Amino acid sequence: MSTNPTNPTTITAEEGTPYLEVVRDFDCTPAQLFRAHTDPKVVARWLGPRDLEMDVEEYDARPGGSYRYIHHGGHLGDHRAAFHGVFHTVKPDLIVQTFEFEGAPDEVVLGTYRIQEVDGRTRLITRSVFPSMAAREAALASGMEYGIRDSMDRLAELLAREV
Amino acid sequence: MSTNPTNPTTITAEEGTPYLEVVRDFDCTPAQLFRAHTDPKVVARWLGPRDLEMDVEEYDARPGGSYRYIHHGGHLGDHRAAFHGVFHTVKPDLIVQTFEFEGAPDEVVLGTYRIQEVDGRTRLITRSVFPSMAAREAALASGMEYGIRDSMDRLAELLAREV
Repeated sequence: MSTNPTNPTTITAEEGTPYLEVVRDFDCTPAQLFRAHTDPKVVARWLGPRDLEMDVEEYDARPGGSYRYIHHGGHLGDHRAAFHGVFHTVKPDLIVQTFEFEGAPDEVVLGTYRIQEVDGRTRLITRSVFPSMAAREAALASGMEYGIRDSMDRLAELLAREV
Repeated sequence: MSTNPTNPTTITAEEGTPYLEVVRDFDCTPAQLFRAHTDPKVVARWLGPRDLEMDVEEYDARPGGSYRYIHHGGHLGDHRAAFHGVFHTVKPDLIVQTFEFEGAPDEVVLGTYRIQEVDGRTRLITRSVFPSMAAREAALASGMEYGIRDSMDRLAELLAREV
């Protein structure tokens, strides 16, 4: 399978809604993309901006499982950015999980990851539902978009090396 | 503490948003309202329309805990309506949990329950975030509002008997 790590990442934050949608095609199988979202050893190699380290404290990707990870280093300096949540659905084509950035406590986001085969590629459709429109705007203002684009590129590069 | 089981329930479904907000004041302590949301023996006595029975299969109200329950009887006839989800936050003043009606699979709602003391009463502020505006409209069309009003009245009656 030919692998193109330069497919575009499309980020949509429609005005007047609390949703953030991210779509990216990968030249890999659905099973590979699923593993990249559920195996903590793989997740730790692409999730987050490129300059950060990621410590995975827990990543139990099954319905009712919990996760917590910490980003540090790089532009964060002495700061550590921790995230946690629980998995509601873990199926080959659908992952639904909660997401809380501990720097914005009690602002819980619901994240949905759909994995679909499209014309021989695998499409990842991520939809985040924020608890308010203001919470989405705050997340975007904090540089979330940059982190998403970097993560998607890193994931494509990882899949290109290891397909 | 005097108890008034006839306080109004305010349900707000603002146009153009995927949110449903329910506010109700109870003449009880915050701790009593918290227990009514976390002890499955109490939950089973008020959650849902009055004519239904509720079987609680699991109700592990702690962060990372899961729940599943089934409504049956009454107007459901031979039908059984099952619901499940996971708890993200369980604190005395805040519960955050996912919610899936198994009749609408993969439509996951994020529910937030805030418990606040206001002028000697305890206010419950429930906010449900639907995965789309259409999902909220479908839930409202299915009679969800009736179920909410009945639940809030049953809860008030239960607290009135057992304060």
